Amino acid sequence: MSLPTGPAVAARTPFGAEAAELLAAFRPPVVSFHFGLPEPALLAQVKAWGAKVLSSATTVDEALWLQAHGADAIVAQGLEAGGHRGHFLHDDLSLQQGTLALLPQVVRAVQLPVIAAGGIADAAGVAAAQALGAAGVQVGTAYLLCPEAQTAPLHRQALASAAVGHTALTNVFTGRPARGIVNRAMRALGQGGTAISPLAPDFPLAASAMAPLRAAAEQAGRDDFTPLWAGQSAALCRPMPAAELTRALAAGWQAGR
Amino acid sequence: MSLPTGPAVAARTPFGAEAAELLAAFRPPVVSFHFGLPEPALLAQVKAWGAKVLSSATTVDEALWLQAHGADAIVAQGLEAGGHRGHFLHDDLSLQQGTLALLPQVVRAVQLPVIAAGGIADAAGVAAAQALGAAGVQVGTAYLLCPEAQTAPLHRQALASAAVGHTALTNVFTGRPARGIVNRAMRALGQGGTAISPLAPDFPLAASAMAPLRAAAEQAGRDDFTPLWAGQSAALCRPMPAAELTRALAAGWQAGR
Repeated sequence: MSLPTGPAVAARTPFGAEAAELLAAFRPPVVSFHFGLPEPALLAQVKAWGAKVLSSATTVDEALWLQAHGADAIVAQGLEAGGHRGHFLHDDLSLQQGTLALLPQVVRAVQLPVIAAGGIADAAGVAAAQALGAAGVQVGTAYLLCPEAQTAPLHRQALASAAVGHTALTNVFTGRPARGIVNRAMRALGQGGTAISPLAPDFPLAASAMAPLRAAAEQAGRDDFTPLWAGQSAALCRPMPAAELTRALAAGWQAGR
Repeated sequence: MSLPTGPAVAARTPFGAEAAELLAAFRPPVVSFHFGLPEPALLAQVKAWGAKVLSSATTVDEALWLQAHGADAIVAQGLEAGGHRGHFLHDDLSLQQGTLALLPQVVRAVQLPVIAAGGIADAAGVAAAQALGAAGVQVGTAYLLCPEAQTAPLHRQALASAAVGHTALTNVFTGRPARGIVNRAMRALGQGGTAISPLAPDFPLAASAMAPLRAAAEQAGRDDFTPLWAGQSAALCRPMPAAELTRALAAGWQAGR
């Protein structure tokens, strides 16, 4: 599971004492956080279950911060990644690096295993991440067309269309920058040639603000106001069973390398 | 040599009939263009020398355009790359992809050899590019601290400083987006949290507009108004002889792979 948390969103994060209590019974072996780490007492509670704790770093600074604050492994999230950027120390988007640049710098900076995320959608991408020093990979977008995925029909349609080739970072759907397929809301609300608006309500309130428009448009079969989360390699996305895709990806990993 | 050209800048490009005449005597075996390709007659002239023609693509569309218009190989330029973006069909910066995402998509789209550029600064980067299907790599930033490079002293200083970790795309120095180490001019003139200004004079006139400030600042030993071109892997840049660096990079390429 991937839970939003960390200093930047502490006041509005869903991971608090109640969520921790709820999860305790399941003793999850791995808990992966996004947007930093929960406060020390909560993190200690999670670790007391025996869980290994992962979190995303989008800069070398964030990787060092996570290492210093108790993460067991770092997810190096390159800017190719779909969905929300995991940044939590800085919100300057120009600090976001491509996976090819970020990953080796994080690997050099920390003593923890580093998991590569962003732009990896086939065996070649897995092999490239391994060559760059990754201890593993995290793949999201490539699974979105799998029959097992709970991807909504409009989202599937967009992923299978020509629109898939153009994604951008946008804050108009949730208030935090996330990568999705460019659609009407992103074009109309983005400023300065971007899909970012300084007027977007704070995370996660923008989602409520967009909800009525989104519902009406979806009712009419339109994805104009729907977040179509996807990474920059979304064009490689194919409808195939998840197990088959996982085996195809694993073929890129060279054992013993 | 890498020559700016192409439809977007045809009116102000330095590569015209005179430049072609000048070069003809040298019969360069390879001519690499940036910003597209010269007009057909000029391109035919270059090819008549026996030169192989390269040009940069920053999108799949641009790669297909270059293939259709006579390029012999495509440089797939990921957004990690330092200096000027080679885009020439579209100027929407959100179309720019990380090398890890762009490279395999270009490799699948064209029948030409694809050369990877952007974020490659060590043997691991070379191995990753090869895994992603590159027929070769183009490395720029990594050479900037070599004694053979004509990198200006202030530029070298910045590359060896902590500032090297933060680059951004900016148009304030030349009028076209290019990646450099973030400095005062980029911070002061960029808009909307970026280093891009809609007020920058057209390429390449912005350079003249900045020249007096730049000269005065450099005189005072400051790089506030100097373009400090560098890619996102600039932190890996080390002062070492170019031959040594080339050998180190080549060690990442697996022969016969």
